[in-house]
Amino acid sequence: MAKKLWGARFTKEIDKDFFQFQKSIQYDYKLAKYDIYHSLIHVLALADAKILSKPETKKLISSLKEILKEIEANKFKPNLESEDIHTDIQNRIEKKIGRLALKLHTLRSRNDMIVFDEKFYSSDKASEIVDNLRKTIASLKYLSNQYKNIDIVGYTHSQRAQKIKFSDYIGAFIKMFGNDLERLSNFQNNLIIYIGSGAFKGTTLLKNYKTAIKKANGILRFKTGKIKVVDNPACNVSDRDFIVEFLSILANLQMHLSRICEDFILYSTKEFNYLELPEEFCTGSSLMPHKKNPDFLELVRGYTGRIYGGLISILVTMKGLPLTYNRDMQLDKKPLFSCVEIIEAELKLMAKFIKEIKLNKEVIKIALKDKSLYTVDLVESLVKDNGMPFKKAYDIVGKSIKNK
Amino acid sequence: MAKKLWGARFTKEIDKDFFQFQKSIQYDYKLAKYDIYHSLIHVLALADAKILSKPETKKLISSLKEILKEIEANKFKPNLESEDIHTDIQNRIEKKIGRLALKLHTLRSRNDMIVFDEKFYSSDKASEIVDNLRKTIASLKYLSNQYKNIDIVGYTHSQRAQKIKFSDYIGAFIKMFGNDLERLSNFQNNLIIYIGSGAFKGTTLLKNYKTAIKKANGILRFKTGKIKVVDNPACNVSDRDFIVEFLSILANLQMHLSRICEDFILYSTKEFNYLELPEEFCTGSSLMPHKKNPDFLELVRGYTGRIYGGLISILVTMKGLPLTYNRDMQLDKKPLFSCVEIIEAELKLMAKFIKEIKLNKEVIKIALKDKSLYTVDLVESLVKDNGMPFKKAYDIVGKSIKNK
Amino acid sequence: MAKKLWGARFTKEIDKDFFQFQKSIQYDYKLAKYDIYHSLIHVLALADAKILSKPETKKLISSLKEILKEIEANKFKPNLESEDIHTDIQNRIEKKIGRLALKLHTLRSRNDMIVFDEKFYSSDKASEIVDNLRKTIASLKYLSNQYKNIDIVGYTHSQRAQKIKFSDYIGAFIKMFGNDLERLSNFQNNLIIYIGSGAFKGTTLLKNYKTAIKKANGILRFKTGKIKVVDNPACNVSDRDFIVEFLSILANLQMHLSRICEDFILYSTKEFNYLELPEEFCTGSSLMPHKKNPDFLELVRGYTGRIYGGLISILVTMKGLPLTYNRDMQLDKKPLFSCVEIIEAELKLMAKFIKEIKLNKEVIKIALKDKSLYTVDLVESLVKDNGMPFKKAYDIVGKSIKNK
Amino acid sequence: MAKKLWGARFTKEIDKDFFQFQKSIQYDYKLAKYDIYHSLIHVLALADAKILSKPETKKLISSLKEILKEIEANKFKPNLESEDIHTDIQNRIEKKIGRLALKLHTLRSRNDMIVFDEKFYSSDKASEIVDNLRKTIASLKYLSNQYKNIDIVGYTHSQRAQKIKFSDYIGAFIKMFGNDLERLSNFQNNLIIYIGSGAFKGTTLLKNYKTAIKKANGILRFKTGKIKVVDNPACNVSDRDFIVEFLSILANLQMHLSRICEDFILYSTKEFNYLELPEEFCTGSSLMPHKKNPDFLELVRGYTGRIYGGLISILVTMKGLPLTYNRDMQLDKKPLFSCVEIIEAELKLMAKFIKEIKLNKEVIKIALKDKSLYTVDLVESLVKDNGMPFKKAYDIVGKSIKNK
Repeated sequence: MAKKLWGARFTKEIDKDFFQFQKSIQYDYKLAKYDIYHSLIHVLALADAKILSKPETKKLISSLKEILKEIEANKFKPNLESEDIHTDIQNRIEKKIGRLALKLHTLRSRNDMIVFDEKFYSSDKASEIVDNLRKTIASLKYLSNQYKNIDIVGYTHSQRAQKIKFSDYIGAFIKMFGNDLERLSNFQNNLIIYIGSGAFKGTTLLKNYKTAIKKANGILRFKTGKIKVVDNPACNVSDRDFIVEFLSILANLQMHLSRICEDFILYSTKEFNYLELPEEFCTGSSLMPHKKNPDFLELVRGYTGRIYGGLISILVTMKGLPLTYNRDMQLDKKPLFSCVEIIEAELKLMAKFIKEIKLNKEVIKIALKDKSLYTVDLVESLVKDNGMPFKKAYDIVGKSIKNK
Repeated sequence: MAKKLWGARFTKEIDKDFFQFQKSIQYDYKLAKYDIYHSLIHVLALADAKILSKPETKKLISSLKEILKEIEANKFKPNLESEDIHTDIQNRIEKKIGRLALKLHTLRSRNDMIVFDEKFYSSDKASEIVDNLRKTIASLKYLSNQYKNIDIVGYTHSQRAQKIKFSDYIGAFIKMFGNDLERLSNFQNNLIIYIGSGAFKGTTLLKNYKTAIKKANGILRFKTGKIKVVDNPACNVSDRDFIVEFLSILANLQMHLSRICEDFILYSTKEFNYLELPEEFCTGSSLMPHKKNPDFLELVRGYTGRIYGGLISILVTMKGLPLTYNRDMQLDKKPLFSCVEIIEAELKLMAKFIKEIKLNKEVIKIALKDKSLYTVDLVESLVKDNGMPFKKAYDIVGKSIKNK
Repeated sequence: MAKKLWGARFTKEIDKDFFQFQKSIQYDYKLAKYDIYHSLIHVLALADAKILSKPETKKLISSLKEILKEIEANKFKPNLESEDIHTDIQNRIEKKIGRLALKLHTLRSRNDMIVFDEKFYSSDKASEIVDNLRKTIASLKYLSNQYKNIDIVGYTHSQRAQKIKFSDYIGAFIKMFGNDLERLSNFQNNLIIYIGSGAFKGTTLLKNYKTAIKKANGILRFKTGKIKVVDNPACNVSDRDFIVEFLSILANLQMHLSRICEDFILYSTKEFNYLELPEEFCTGSSLMPHKKNPDFLELVRGYTGRIYGGLISILVTMKGLPLTYNRDMQLDKKPLFSCVEIIEAELKLMAKFIKEIKLNKEVIKIALKDKSLYTVDLVESLVKDNGMPFKKAYDIVGKSIKNK
Repeated sequence: MAKKLWGARFTKEIDKDFFQFQKSIQYDYKLAKYDIYHSLIHVLALADAKILSKPETKKLISSLKEILKEIEANKFKPNLESEDIHTDIQNRIEKKIGRLALKLHTLRSRNDMIVFDEKFYSSDKASEIVDNLRKTIASLKYLSNQYKNIDIVGYTHSQRAQKIKFSDYIGAFIKMFGNDLERLSNFQNNLIIYIGSGAFKGTTLLKNYKTAIKKANGILRFKTGKIKVVDNPACNVSDRDFIVEFLSILANLQMHLSRICEDFILYSTKEFNYLELPEEFCTGSSLMPHKKNPDFLELVRGYTGRIYGGLISILVTMKGLPLTYNRDMQLDKKPLFSCVEIIEAELKLMAKFIKEIKLNKEVIKIALKDKSLYTVDLVESLVKDNGMPFKKAYDIVGKSIKNK
């Protein structure tokens, strides 16, 4: 067990199994970068408040920057005996610069840090997902362009309905993902990352934070545009509605993904046979040597369970919690991280996958010969050209089908 | 069983039990108003396309307006033997004007109508919920103003933490609901109500719809600002992401509601005793004559299950559906309606309830005497006034607690 | 507003909107029958305790029986101005026999009644669902027998895999539903319906209840075999785990239903075309006169959302509730009732539907000519007859496929 | 990338990112032990079918036993470049004994292995959870015995209701957990672990498996009592209802855990102050030196989100999957493993935690002086001793409260 950030009043050692149960370092280390950002602004605020001298400030900032470099170079290895990422970073700094480190946490609470970190993470990840979603949309457009003037069979209720342009069919998914993209952008744009909540009642450093944010913009290399001094600290440390919002947008996106997968699985069956899937994204069977399975599509469809489950998880955890911070809220991170990581992995592959899909034009051509696809046109011509009332035209065409 | 909108090709009668199972009139009658709107625009489009003559148009519009009046006067009684609201209205018009009614559904599909109706409903309801949420926020501000300079005990982990202003405590909920309100407004603003999808490939009436929407603005009394001619019909009839988005915003709001309820239940226990709840919103026990129970707060907290359940319901139903329309999607309405109605009922009462809450100032005053509420101030003064490193100050104050 | 069972200590009238919000009569009237059962036993207990005289007992019992008759004849109309079913029945008895009715609720709490009612309902409904499930299984057996020696194409990953007997394919669903049936029976068998909890600490009538249950067996016409005098009253009134258990069994069953629907929808596409669905369970399109849609299957698949949503609803409502009874728990009924009713309606139709399915033997025969269905047999013969190591045989057969 | 169990027909290499996306070794290595069991029985079956010679059989078995020893000694490190645990073990054996290993997978499919492994895992874990739950119940009994004749305040609606024995209060949780225990035992008892499904249509080795299971009992050290030769292979490889059943039992248990946590958090507030929680299971604040927070209870309550989320995850993934095996089903493992591991960790600590709880007898004694706790006794005496009708007695006592 590494040094902890608390404990003066305790007379008994923490139970070792309980320590393992309650620590979060094994997953919250993913927030390391953002935790450094918080510390950097905090140090600038303490300097502005004259709680740190200039040399102290310099020393602290340079040690924070050292750790940041490690993180950015993917060399940061969390100490799994630390309680959480805040403690881990604190302990590292103490190792680097000794007792001065004990001033770093002055008038600061982990309650403020964690929500700062999670919001920054969510903002960055929302941007990344937007980028990846753009690539998926671009691949859909590429595919659509490959088969520009092709018509395909359109379905309702999984039954042949009417002829439809392939570009309109693919366009439906482009439109769905476009809506997801808009929701993600709105979420990202509206997200405000607050600082200065203390445990929940704010601190006396609020003015200093304001100065610090401005300064940070100059001397540090991260975007501070979304950071603001907190307005209602009790709300800030208590709420996780931004995670619910983020995950529900991802749930909608995942729902759309499950549907494109369903269609592509269907269309690549031997029976439909409209699509040829790229072999590099299929797997075989250990028993049946002939199999070529649409595993990628099945796995994406299957992940719907995990994304919906993640959304429910955070909603349930937050239900009925009294104000302000409660330890239950630590458990917001696993669903957040896992939903984000699943979606990212799916989208990265989806963009590649879609480009490699081939249409079986011959099969499609034959299917389009099915006369039932043109009943609406027939009805329309009876109505428009012959002035027949719609219902009558509908009945005549319908009965002619029956009699076949 | 009333007359149906389909069936020409069928040789067997629909199974009676199956008819009952599949019909939706018992709940989709709530969309009657919006279904009339769709019909009005559709008739104008048919007129513009010369499919309806001027007298025909006039007759149809006036019969639609008659039904609209009934609906607006709350006198509309759905015929429960109709299959759905579209059919019900069609049949009514046939009763009024005879065979001309058979032209009403020309080149139109219920797939286009139902999503039009549901989006219009969602848009209207989002506005109403915004209004009701504003009233709840106003009540919170009123309550906060009633006890302007009062401090109360602030909690983390359900344990006494620091003194906090009552206005900041209530401000946390105002901020939460303010976020919900912003989400709802964004949702409502971004929602576009499309028309013209046909079954899923659009119709040849698209230009006429454009004209019709413009005209409708002049001669009808509903807002057409959100209505547009469909861009991708296949997407429009296939998707229900707007319901997922709406219900997930309501889920966040409900999560916040569950938390204010939890706190108020806690604070009105005999043990905390900070709050006096209005008797008009409490109930008693049939066995224990002394009981005064916070039923309103418990019921709102309990409804969290229903709202989360509604969100999961629509998400699950939409998972993995092939394009385009599938009958599964009919089942989107019950969760939509019930979530909306629950939230509306909760908010209407919440606004009244909050205004009647009384603070037990004497009890609060005594609680505020607890010295442990001021340890942060003590630490801060050691740091700021005595220049002590934070960690040392923390340890000194912490140990003094332990030794008590 | 009708007379209430509580209120002596209240000085203000209940808010009218809140009364509407909190009442449950609009759905808990479905428990009327079981509420009468509780009252009958209770009256016998009060008689045994000499709190009621013999004439009083007789009068009360006969008035209860009168109401029971109405219920059994489907003539019971709840008074929607009553708070709940308990109150409604109490008021009816008062109307019938006057002031003596005021003795009925002696030393009894609605907390005890409601859980008694819900358990009895769950027990009865579990039995009914078992019966309906048996019928569905019987229909599957019937279908399987109709096509006794037929082979069909078996699939993994929606891709053709190996030939399989139709009876084994249908047998898979029979086995799944058989497992559901076993779970339902176990649930029903293990369910104990307790009486005598009072509000939560039991009553002094426990011995009298024991006698009363025995007596009830003789003079009343409902099965008392599952009724016991409560052992831990605090648990009994606080818990709803039996609803979670019941709904999770139904969720498993519904998951299985969604899968048979998915397969049958797939197999009735024009592309697979293995099945002909009964027209009486299909519907058409209001625009496309040729359509015959598998609506029944789609609706059942779609209801999965509602069943999963119901399960989540009760789980969420119960999360984190303090002991003992809380008003949140009133909201357990809607998900319980709606899940039960959906499953019942589905199963009743499913049993009919399945019997009418026809196999397109010719289409199947052609599909079975696909050589890829027999690669495992080829590998097996190479292994068994030629003594070739499996992996080598697999590779040879696999490569021969590739080279085609 | 390590060697794969499939691929003969493929001409392109699998995409590297897709390989990472689709592999499961990073979590399914937890099933290593059970995968060895399957292989052992399979080798015995192949021997019985004369596909393996005696020396081959001996060699294979001894290499399997070697790996089993590693696993049991916790020395097994999965090769993260393997696709899954089945492949990893196959490759290990090939390393040990060369080309003979290529016979191991003869006429076997991973579809059969994975469900065998998961059922065996579920069975073992259900037993372990039963043991841990027994310990938690034992701790509750211990706590109850420590305060044998103590009464406490009983609550309904979080409001003081009636006096209740501490042992009855704790008894309510004992009863709840007892119900969970019974459900778990039933699940474990009814679970059958099938072998012999092949990909989904069974194998020609079924008789040999029967012999092999019997033999295994003699020469191997694992319990074969639950293993049976498969009856319907298509069902066996297609279904995961046992995971839904298992996780829904855990969801009920978790719901109960959330409630005991809620109560203990409440009772350890400064305001209720009935309980003293063991310091070893509490943590402090990094800002407020006086804090002692009930983190263990909060975390357990918070984990409710994860357990419910896990249940929903598997339910959603399985929704609407066509028969037989689909790759979506690979995603059943993460929710299964994580729910099991969370529950195990919770219960282990819960048993320790509960034993260390202390009651603040003095505080309780004062609370019990509250007269409102005895209104039911008053009513009862008026009814029983004075023969007053219940309703009248209730009204008199109720009004006397009001007038205070």
